[in-house]
Amino acid sequence: MNEARGKFISLEGGEGAGKSTLLAGLREYIEQRGIALVQTREPGGTAVGEAVRAIVLDPAQHGLAAETELLLMFASRAQLVRELIEPALSAGQWVLCDRYADASYAYQGGGRGQPIARIAELERWACAGVKPDLTLLLDLPVATGRARAAGRGDADRIEVEADAFFERVRTSYRERAAAEPDRFRVIDASQSPAAVLQAAMRELAVLVGASPA
Amino acid sequence: MNEARGKFISLEGGEGAGKSTLLAGLREYIEQRGIALVQTREPGGTAVGEAVRAIVLDPAQHGLAAETELLLMFASRAQLVRELIEPALSAGQWVLCDRYADASYAYQGGGRGQPIARIAELERWACAGVKPDLTLLLDLPVATGRARAAGRGDADRIEVEADAFFERVRTSYRERAAAEPDRFRVIDASQSPAAVLQAAMRELAVLVGASPA
Repeated sequence: MNEARGKFISLEGGEGAGKSTLLAGLREYIEQRGIALVQTREPGGTAVGEAVRAIVLDPAQHGLAAETELLLMFASRAQLVRELIEPALSAGQWVLCDRYADASYAYQGGGRGQPIARIAELERWACAGVKPDLTLLLDLPVATGRARAAGRGDADRIEVEADAFFERVRTSYRERAAAEPDRFRVIDASQSPAAVLQAAMRELAVLVGASPA
Repeated sequence: MNEARGKFISLEGGEGAGKSTLLAGLREYIEQRGIALVQTREPGGTAVGEAVRAIVLDPAQHGLAAETELLLMFASRAQLVRELIEPALSAGQWVLCDRYADASYAYQGGGRGQPIARIAELERWACAGVKPDLTLLLDLPVATGRARAAGRGDADRIEVEADAFFERVRTSYRERAAAEPDRFRVIDASQSPAAVLQAAMRELAVLVGASPA
């Protein structure tokens, strides 16, 4: 029954990279092809995950330890995999997720300095082997992304970090993309939203073509 | 400065073991000796921890995965150690905690079947080496404890588990106590509250005598 399994696509990128705009475009592209799609996000996507999201993004939680943040992110992820992602994929639905485990390597690893081996060990059992078929990394210079995000109003607890934090996040993302070229596609997010969507759709076309749908 | 470090006492036990009554008695005993005491609980004790507590005890979260529960418990614990327990101990205060890491071995390990090696690895880095000087285990037959707890009104998400779950929790606690006899003291919680308090105070007297206070 493996032929009927859905495809799992994750979208990664820093602040102001244009993930929300791209998600809407990709959703339309996939659904227009008659493919049943579940769109979700991290942290979040389940009742537990959304409660975790409220904690980790709350600017009042300025004393949140890096270890606590890492554990909360994987708590949200463990629930999302079991409650939503794996059931959807098993039922032949596609899953489009705004961030997934790579985000912990980038933010909690690169950004906060949590050991990569620790994150890999959490991923090993918390994600139960569920890995994206395709990960689109929206890459752009930190300054460009922050300038875009600045127009959005109140910053959350992570958005208020210093530029150096986001430089480490970007470096981590690019290193992961380089280490897993079969899964990752890096898209230049400094392009126009239309050009970013075109580039992303070209990558999805391969998956759509490979699908029985 | 090690002489001035406070003592860390944790209290463990199943439902209806009389932890709350004993905590009040121990608090009075310690404070009457002029020792500054911080009393706290797990999950909880910090803003993050109390948010986690609300999730894990909510009967509506019946789909909470065992992995999610384990990660949430350690998220609460990682924050409690760094925000409250370690600063208090370093400042010479004593800490009295209603449950600590042993509870994850008993509930998420024994009760839910999460691998002990996984829990030990989380404890290694999430607890940053902070371990109780004394752990009082209130032990009593599951049926006795459940009969006592039944009078309390609405049961939380963990209290509604089957007897077999609580038998595994009790067995795990007793095994941990047997494996670390220097740290653990097992108290027969089927005794009267006064007798339980007397037994606990005898154990604390050793710590009080060993303290410079």
